Amino acid sequence: MAEPLRIALAGLGTVGAGVIRLIETNRDLLAARAGRELKVVAVSARDRAKDRGVDLSPYTWEDDMAALAARDDVDVVVELVGGADGPALALAHAALDNGKALVTANKAMIAHHGIALAESAEEQDVALKFEAAVGGGIPVVKGLREGTSANALERIYGILNGTCNYILSKMEDTGADFAEVLSEAQRLGYAEADPTFDIEGVDAAHKLAILAAIGFGARLDFAAVRTTGITQVKAADIAQADALGFVIRLIAMTDVEESDSGEPLLLQRVRPCLVSKGHPLASVDGPTNAVVAEGNFSGRLLFQGAGAGDGPTASAVVADLIDIARDEVGAPFSIPVAQLAAMQPTEPGHRIESTYLRFTVNDRPGVLAEITAAMRDAGVSIESLIQQGRAVDGGDVLVAMVTHEGPERCVREALDLLDGSESLTAPPLVLPILRD
Amino acid sequence: MAEPLRIALAGLGTVGAGVIRLIETNRDLLAARAGRELKVVAVSARDRAKDRGVDLSPYTWEDDMAALAARDDVDVVVELVGGADGPALALAHAALDNGKALVTANKAMIAHHGIALAESAEEQDVALKFEAAVGGGIPVVKGLREGTSANALERIYGILNGTCNYILSKMEDTGADFAEVLSEAQRLGYAEADPTFDIEGVDAAHKLAILAAIGFGARLDFAAVRTTGITQVKAADIAQADALGFVIRLIAMTDVEESDSGEPLLLQRVRPCLVSKGHPLASVDGPTNAVVAEGNFSGRLLFQGAGAGDGPTASAVVADLIDIARDEVGAPFSIPVAQLAAMQPTEPGHRIESTYLRFTVNDRPGVLAEITAAMRDAGVSIESLIQQGRAVDGGDVLVAMVTHEGPERCVREALDLLDGSESLTAPPLVLPILRD
Repeated sequence: MAEPLRIALAGLGTVGAGVIRLIETNRDLLAARAGRELKVVAVSARDRAKDRGVDLSPYTWEDDMAALAARDDVDVVVELVGGADGPALALAHAALDNGKALVTANKAMIAHHGIALAESAEEQDVALKFEAAVGGGIPVVKGLREGTSANALERIYGILNGTCNYILSKMEDTGADFAEVLSEAQRLGYAEADPTFDIEGVDAAHKLAILAAIGFGARLDFAAVRTTGITQVKAADIAQADALGFVIRLIAMTDVEESDSGEPLLLQRVRPCLVSKGHPLASVDGPTNAVVAEGNFSGRLLFQGAGAGDGPTASAVVADLIDIARDEVGAPFSIPVAQLAAMQPTEPGHRIESTYLRFTVNDRPGVLAEITAAMRDAGVSIESLIQQGRAVDGGDVLVAMVTHEGPERCVREALDLLDGSESLTAPPLVLPILRD
Repeated sequence: MAEPLRIALAGLGTVGAGVIRLIETNRDLLAARAGRELKVVAVSARDRAKDRGVDLSPYTWEDDMAALAARDDVDVVVELVGGADGPALALAHAALDNGKALVTANKAMIAHHGIALAESAEEQDVALKFEAAVGGGIPVVKGLREGTSANALERIYGILNGTCNYILSKMEDTGADFAEVLSEAQRLGYAEADPTFDIEGVDAAHKLAILAAIGFGARLDFAAVRTTGITQVKAADIAQADALGFVIRLIAMTDVEESDSGEPLLLQRVRPCLVSKGHPLASVDGPTNAVVAEGNFSGRLLFQGAGAGDGPTASAVVADLIDIARDEVGAPFSIPVAQLAAMQPTEPGHRIESTYLRFTVNDRPGVLAEITAAMRDAGVSIESLIQQGRAVDGGDVLVAMVTHEGPERCVREALDLLDGSESLTAPPLVLPILRD
């Protein structure tokens, strides 16, 4: 058997401890599959004294994690520190600059700095791998890089944030409102104390930008992701969607269209959608993640599994280590960085879709006439409209409608016409509809 | 860019033509992802004159497909001829013996001869790849070999035959009986003129044996797969299952248990099951395939997509070609053949499961007493029992029951007690229950 693959591990939170536990538990199996031993040599984290439930005594401890990147007895650095910049990024660059492979679960860092890191990795001819950055334990980076590699992809979309999916499917099951379910999710560990990155869609946007780069050969452009979170979704919206045959899910979606002059334009967006109950994503409940890739020959492929957690994330990290041990690595984003196309973002106003709209209005005569007139004037055709009988939030009532398919910008124009109206007591909610 | 990967293609049915079409259509994309051109050099099939909807003039035609394996200008032979033995196997061995890589979609050949072929491939240090042999366009071979590589798998199971799944889900939708739906499937091209291999579960068994080898490091043992097809499933069973909260699917399943002396015992079986409606496999309809892999760290992963068809199958074949062009190949069954463990098959009688049983009986007094006495005597506990009021098949009635969980062998013993009974007018149907 070949020489062991020598690993340094930075960051010993739940995932880091999970990686240690996995490598210990499945040691022989990993060696058989990788063709050589996966050997943790050195570790580093903030607090040496903390009990992490794993025995760290076999490994050299470095107080300064930067020292891991400089060790001669290390082939791969595993970065599990987190944060887009700061120590994680410094370590990543130091590792690559020193000719070591890098494995990371850090979606924020890859979304912001993936191009620069991939350039370093290619320059040094070492691996940069980040399977665990997207979809937790689901091998979706490999799925796109290797599984769908023969296809021009038409669309990639999915459920990429387990916290939002837990909250939305819990709201669905219990009828409780957002704030209440969020508190419960925090209590159960499904949501962070500061949940902003999750519930505002930023975490899903990080992952989407990574998938877009791999799937479409697009130069990573996180800043161009259009992101809407789930904080505006009410229990009443979920009930309304249910009655119409839909569930609500936070959907991240990316595709490419051609401009009039033939240039590729990249669409990347994260937003809550009504998903038809017959769609495979509608039955994705709780913290589960799922990604759909539609190829021009493969048709629709679905990858589903646990989107987070120490075990699944460790599974993805160690799968990357096995790839490196097998010397099966290749370009981090499937094609060399220099060939990734810098794509302008598209203005999707011409896209045709059907939309769910919810207005919070005063319960007084003329409100419906005002709303429907704005729809008519903007060219939006209404398929169904429901005014809820019972008042909520002190006298306000909800008006929900579903539009026929039409250009996105028409709905936007209708809302502009209603902007400033005294009939509306809160900003309207607009959710696109994803059918099977 | 490196030298082109030079390809010879044997067999130009719908899949072969699909591979040509894919390579033509996605040419630039494939070159970017593979790092070199995928170049078809020579082709061979039975009938040169046949119109296949693709232009074959750029490629050298060989009347004798064996000649493909001997050409100096070929790096990889793609075998799409079909059949476990005969010309396909001869070509496969000739290609490997001549030091050429082999890509095949031939599940029967791999299930029967995969070990010998992998030995040749390893001896010659060339690639043997067969992503298209299992699950059509779903990258499940790569999913197990690379995606779940860090895990000890607890179980692999799924829907591996699109014909059976089409028939069962169509019976579900229409209430029609097996024979009627089979004829329709044949008319629509979802079932072969001779559907035996599909409806008797043999095709699914081929695929399962391949997955078991990759997932569990077991020496391929197709002969040990316990296989039951779907021909005995009646519309009444599907209606009954529906009322109980289940659908019926042909499920292929494999796992490993330890014998009393600590030896690994391999379970491989294909059989129709009642699948709880909340399970992800219950919503897999029509010719779609899906595979679940449960890892000790990843948890449950699901891979789903089109199980057959020229586009999806070509997608899988060409993904293998890209792996070869990238020089990312490794052992065909994830670990070297010599390390695959020859596992004895398990006798699963001690396994605990809940079972659906359907009896076709004479409509006369004492029948229920006879059946329930047999259950009692064999130690089978009945959870629910339904005797259908209306007679079918000339005076016979159906009695359906669901058992509490218990050892499999008890149900078998109960049926042995009833063997030869004049009350039963047809062999009973036994379907295990797969819960979420």
